[in-house]
Amino acid sequence: MKKNKLFAVGIGPGGEEHMTQKALKVLEEADIIIGYTAYIELVKKIFPEKEYIATAMKKEIERCKIAVEQSLEGKTVAMVSSGDSGIYGMAGILLQLVNAQKEAIDFEVIPGVTAANAAAAILGAPLMHDFSVISLSDLMTPLDLIMKRVECSAEGDFVICLYNPKSKKRTDYITKAAEIVGKYRSENTPVGIVRNAGREDESSEIVSLKDIDKANIDMFTIVIIGNSQSYIENGKIITPRGYKL
Amino acid sequence: MKKNKLFAVGIGPGGEEHMTQKALKVLEEADIIIGYTAYIELVKKIFPEKEYIATAMKKEIERCKIAVEQSLEGKTVAMVSSGDSGIYGMAGILLQLVNAQKEAIDFEVIPGVTAANAAAAILGAPLMHDFSVISLSDLMTPLDLIMKRVECSAEGDFVICLYNPKSKKRTDYITKAAEIVGKYRSENTPVGIVRNAGREDESSEIVSLKDIDKANIDMFTIVIIGNSQSYIENGKIITPRGYKL
Repeated sequence: MKKNKLFAVGIGPGGEEHMTQKALKVLEEADIIIGYTAYIELVKKIFPEKEYIATAMKKEIERCKIAVEQSLEGKTVAMVSSGDSGIYGMAGILLQLVNAQKEAIDFEVIPGVTAANAAAAILGAPLMHDFSVISLSDLMTPLDLIMKRVECSAEGDFVICLYNPKSKKRTDYITKAAEIVGKYRSENTPVGIVRNAGREDESSEIVSLKDIDKANIDMFTIVIIGNSQSYIENGKIITPRGYKL
Repeated sequence: MKKNKLFAVGIGPGGEEHMTQKALKVLEEADIIIGYTAYIELVKKIFPEKEYIATAMKKEIERCKIAVEQSLEGKTVAMVSSGDSGIYGMAGILLQLVNAQKEAIDFEVIPGVTAANAAAAILGAPLMHDFSVISLSDLMTPLDLIMKRVECSAEGDFVICLYNPKSKKRTDYITKAAEIVGKYRSENTPVGIVRNAGREDESSEIVSLKDIDKANIDMFTIVIIGNSQSYIENGKIITPRGYKL
């Protein structure tokens, strides 16, 4: 019987170590695994005998269409994303494409450890309290709306996680975001910066809000700005929850 | 040589399937595993031969102090939390206690799949765009600040994930939060409700904002309120990212 089974699999932020048991099981049982070249190379090391389709970066729609087509042929397809495919990932496009097909496809999202969680673990305990997650990429979102969200987060004293803080073309959005936050919080607010969270070449630094321009930030970094209570101790960020110790 | 090694391990939202490889490895290598009774029962099934200390709910500080004491005896200690111990978890208290000791303890947070990610996967693809995470529990946070954060999130058109939406004592905070969001968004905004995400008795429903009071919400549920673009299709929530399909 034809199965038409499609999984969006989050493989976590780095290598095999942050993959869940379920993600591994789904990949093991898949007939074909599809994804961006770098993630396919990673999965190939674990399951060398599988059929793979690797596509280039920025070819998200094309990649998702291939995945849907393959599942319509009756294959069990696993589409891999780094982190969690349900957070700024391919789960949305896949679900939209699946819904547009005449034939039913059994679609399932397998959650993973997202980059913010991995970055937080490296920085100490910055996400002990309410937080917001904002992408500074304006490819799909007007810049005004992005900065409005930064402002609302600052006003609400959220810990703020910034994805895609900088690219070659967008170098000053992070500065603008920091200026907005600076209207509501001390210039000494701790800011954690993690590059390649969970990967072999992972690195991190902690600076204060006023020094964010001096930090080494690029498209592979996650930036976490503390709330008004966050502090630095022994090289880690702590956002206290209010427990009496 | 004495090790003084302490891990805060996020075991994911449910059973073994959402645990990462690294979490399993750390638990396997630990001398002693400490946690809330329900999670200890779960881990015992995987590693029956370990030494365990299980403590009751709401004994967070006591549990963390035991973990620190055990690590100071030279043991490798794993303290388990459901989800990710770095999100509203024990990582913060542990780090504060570790910093307060005279003797050095090597402390590491092992990230896990948090409840919001697991809930999102069940609901479809609600977290494709910027989102906020707010706990409605006022045990540690003034109610005014909680509701201010709801208002700021609504104003910024964030997708909103609500942890601890209701308890026996707090039955009307979720209603109040929905009213605030309703000032900024359509009463037909999709709301996803997931109970026991990732567990055997997991259940979910999708309602519109105006019907949130009719939904079955308790302290074991996660509530995800869509942004102004979110919609329901084939029983799933999609928050579109703006790609042209």
